[in-house]
Amino acid sequence: MTGISRLLTGFGAGDLFQLLRDGRPRTRSELASETGFARSTIASRIDELLAAGLIASVGDAVSTGGRPSSRVALNATARLVAGADFGATHATVAVMDLSGDVLEATSAERLISSGPVESLDWLRDTVLDLMERLQRDPADLIAVGVGLPGPVEHATGRPTTPPIMPGWDGYDVPGHLRRTFSVPVLVDNDVNVMALGEQSKGWPDAQDMMLVKVATGIGSGIISGGALQRGADGSAGDIGHISVSSAAGVLCRCGNTGCLEAIAGAPAILRALADQGRDVPTLGDLSDRVGAGDLVAVRTLREAGRNIGEVLNMCVSLINPSLIVVGGAMSRFSDLLIAGIRESVYARAMPLATKNLMIVESKVGAQAGVIGAGMMAIEHALSPLQIDVTVTASAAVV
Amino acid sequence: MTGISRLLTGFGAGDLFQLLRDGRPRTRSELASETGFARSTIASRIDELLAAGLIASVGDAVSTGGRPSSRVALNATARLVAGADFGATHATVAVMDLSGDVLEATSAERLISSGPVESLDWLRDTVLDLMERLQRDPADLIAVGVGLPGPVEHATGRPTTPPIMPGWDGYDVPGHLRRTFSVPVLVDNDVNVMALGEQSKGWPDAQDMMLVKVATGIGSGIISGGALQRGADGSAGDIGHISVSSAAGVLCRCGNTGCLEAIAGAPAILRALADQGRDVPTLGDLSDRVGAGDLVAVRTLREAGRNIGEVLNMCVSLINPSLIVVGGAMSRFSDLLIAGIRESVYARAMPLATKNLMIVESKVGAQAGVIGAGMMAIEHALSPLQIDVTVTASAAVV
Repeated sequence: MTGISRLLTGFGAGDLFQLLRDGRPRTRSELASETGFARSTIASRIDELLAAGLIASVGDAVSTGGRPSSRVALNATARLVAGADFGATHATVAVMDLSGDVLEATSAERLISSGPVESLDWLRDTVLDLMERLQRDPADLIAVGVGLPGPVEHATGRPTTPPIMPGWDGYDVPGHLRRTFSVPVLVDNDVNVMALGEQSKGWPDAQDMMLVKVATGIGSGIISGGALQRGADGSAGDIGHISVSSAAGVLCRCGNTGCLEAIAGAPAILRALADQGRDVPTLGDLSDRVGAGDLVAVRTLREAGRNIGEVLNMCVSLINPSLIVVGGAMSRFSDLLIAGIRESVYARAMPLATKNLMIVESKVGAQAGVIGAGMMAIEHALSPLQIDVTVTASAAVV
Repeated sequence: MTGISRLLTGFGAGDLFQLLRDGRPRTRSELASETGFARSTIASRIDELLAAGLIASVGDAVSTGGRPSSRVALNATARLVAGADFGATHATVAVMDLSGDVLEATSAERLISSGPVESLDWLRDTVLDLMERLQRDPADLIAVGVGLPGPVEHATGRPTTPPIMPGWDGYDVPGHLRRTFSVPVLVDNDVNVMALGEQSKGWPDAQDMMLVKVATGIGSGIISGGALQRGADGSAGDIGHISVSSAAGVLCRCGNTGCLEAIAGAPAILRALADQGRDVPTLGDLSDRVGAGDLVAVRTLREAGRNIGEVLNMCVSLINPSLIVVGGAMSRFSDLLIAGIRESVYARAMPLATKNLMIVESKVGAQAGVIGAGMMAIEHALSPLQIDVTVTASAAVV
């Protein structure tokens, strides 16, 4: 929402609220002089925000005479959002306050292939359960964010031919959840929400960064100029199916050959080890091997890092990030992967593009996805126009 | 400039001006009710904008009684910007009004290697000359935009180790021009300004597009989410030095081997033809060959397109544009190049990323760079904070 388009719709409570999001208490006079808006406008917008519970009176300002002026400030815990992060075989749900702090969260082993009805009903029940644990009214919820392990059309919240999510293609995820929660529901793929979570809690100053998830699949979330970039169809960051030279001829689950994912995803790495006589059925077993100093395991992981780095080298040329963060299930081997990634990226990168480039492991870890889903909900719910909608809905109730 | 940060600095003339940029005339009462700002604020901001010449009174509104209310609207030709597009061996300068229309322009053969002082003095003299031809006061100029054939740190306007621009490294381009014109000077690389020009005049609705320039070098300008993406160090879009399989071992002028530019840039294509016994010293000669149906020339251009497409295939996976525009000196062969590009991009692209993808030739043509440089100047000069600066400067003069 830019200043221009906002002005075209007039000055609402949401605009004033943006000023108060920093948490600093202000009097009505201070707000009027800071903004140049009419005193009558300020007064009515403040009343709306108080009625909606988004701000609160926080004690009186020192007055120069006459009666003290009361001050108002953001009421971060008055309203809540829920974030959910679904993987192929697990899911995490959190309830967060408006400052992005997780108040309560839970995780479960469950299959995304159980379909949208079962998955989303479980999400609904879990959110209601978390709210009850917090002794909060479900009506305090103002938005829900959901991350899913497949491509999503962000504008509608519908998955788009997701390969590992039978039954989800085109499913109206927001519509399903809004039967219970009459609030905005934002949906995106798991890697994009990871990028949002990693940025908001790990690297708040990063304007140009890439979150690379290395797990069963390989994908990335791109933040350029401070904003998550989804591309024209929501498929931006889909690096797992870029062709790499050393994968020539290797068949990928997507139907093509030579994809990065086909040689550097977790199943490909375990298969490569089996081919070399190393029986490592799980990532835990691989971790043991690496811990025991098995050079075949170490070499295989480093080679996977080099292959990922070959693709990231191109990404660095194209989008010039200042930060690449490696996350996902394989990031338990991030020392080896990152060593290989750096090797390839720096081997032939242009000096200008890598002058300030950092390649690091995730700071936020396994919670990045669910936190990012919640942050996506917060950013939407606290945007100027949406605050106006919330305020209007509250007024109807009051 | 977002609504939030703007609110934090108070309501200035620039905010009101954003509303008037659509060209529609409005009365002071209409502006007050459209924005919710205090009547006194509107009145003083309108006076400031009138004094600065950015808006003008445009006749009276039909009144419901009493004296008629005068209306104000954007005064697009009251102020001007200059745009300049420098290539390796030529330069174009244009003077444009605030709606982006070119009022007067000129081109010249000149070497960027003559250095910054000679080049920028020529630019200064040319702008003054164009203003004189237009019978306009140099004081009417409110910003200058410059495109240069090398990497530029956009925030400071200084070139960063540009390979074909001896003497320009770190040169203070804005400082040089501001000795004559006391206005903001915006500088970017030639491909980014081409992307801005192509978007503004050719594809105003494109939110996610890529402008690919194929000439001596190969580069691209990326517009994602409606905004030009420069990356952390201004090197975003630098696709000429991405490695392609068929270039393995070929030495590039950057010092690496295997770069796209080393096999698909104009000199590489002419060299490949010479190796096949075709003497085509210039692109004009190549054009004659193609016109005469020389299959070796046709095949060589199509192969160059395929190699460019191999890189663009990765770009499509990574940033998911809806539009790729091919421009630059080699775009005279765009039929053949685009056929080759499409072949590679569609050969292994993911269905979602290419569902709505168009790959087309430039609409704006050779003027895209200079127009984009001017548009960059306009967007900066008409941003809310900058308008406030302009207004203040005018007040000092008045």
